[in-house]
Amino acid sequence: MAKAIHTMVRVLDLDRSIDFYQRAFGLEVAERFDFDDFVLAYLRNDQSDFEIELTWNKDQAEPYSHGSGYGHLAVSVDDLDAEHSRFEAEGLEPNPVKEMFRDGDLLARFFFVQDPDGYKIEVLQQRGRYL
Amino acid sequence: MAKAIHTMVRVLDLDRSIDFYQRAFGLEVAERFDFDDFVLAYLRNDQSDFEIELTWNKDQAEPYSHGSGYGHLAVSVDDLDAEHSRFEAEGLEPNPVKEMFRDGDLLARFFFVQDPDGYKIEVLQQRGRYL
Repeated sequence: MAKAIHTMVRVLDLDRSIDFYQRAFGLEVAERFDFDDFVLAYLRNDQSDFEIELTWNKDQAEPYSHGSGYGHLAVSVDDLDAEHSRFEAEGLEPNPVKEMFRDGDLLARFFFVQDPDGYKIEVLQQRGRYL
Repeated sequence: MAKAIHTMVRVLDLDRSIDFYQRAFGLEVAERFDFDDFVLAYLRNDQSDFEIELTWNKDQAEPYSHGSGYGHLAVSVDDLDAEHSRFEAEGLEPNPVKEMFRDGDLLARFFFVQDPDGYKIEVLQQRGRYL
């Protein structure tokens, strides 16, 4: 059976993106494959074996575009408010914390942040569905 | 520390997408949150606790667009050729199997498939980085 192992996004400046994912989510480069025209970098931390694959096409000059379909990668944290404060202190410009309710019950507490290429990442309080 | 828990994509026809992800990757709906205007469905299988969140906005009529930035979700399987044959028999229209080399070494064997909304999914033979 198929196992989800990574998500791939294209980035304009590999070092800038690695710095972001390290500071925001503690993700480190587990492996890096250098080719003549592009580099693949695989980022992970010890919370999961699911990786983010960053593709850096060396000759890409224009920013990548974002369609209306792809939404976001989500991560969970054990203290959302502390993480939000830390993101602000780090200059990562998180959006405000929001809450989502359904039939009066709190489903999710979360905030969004964007990586340097504008990919949205949802940071969720660990609870309920989001462990 | 942050834990990667899901990736979210918007889909035009929820039942069609759930059928695809079930047949292609054995993913089942673990939870579904119905709202007035939209539905969130969380898909997983027993290979990983990483989930795919499908968002169905009920009033969406036009197909979602795909930018140049987001790449794909990747899954690994233990027998790529058998899966490729099964995908063909299922009418899932997989692209041909490809191999990627670096300095003469085989890095990856894989094929791509598209979900009903055109999101690309890479199916990789389990080996090396892709376990």
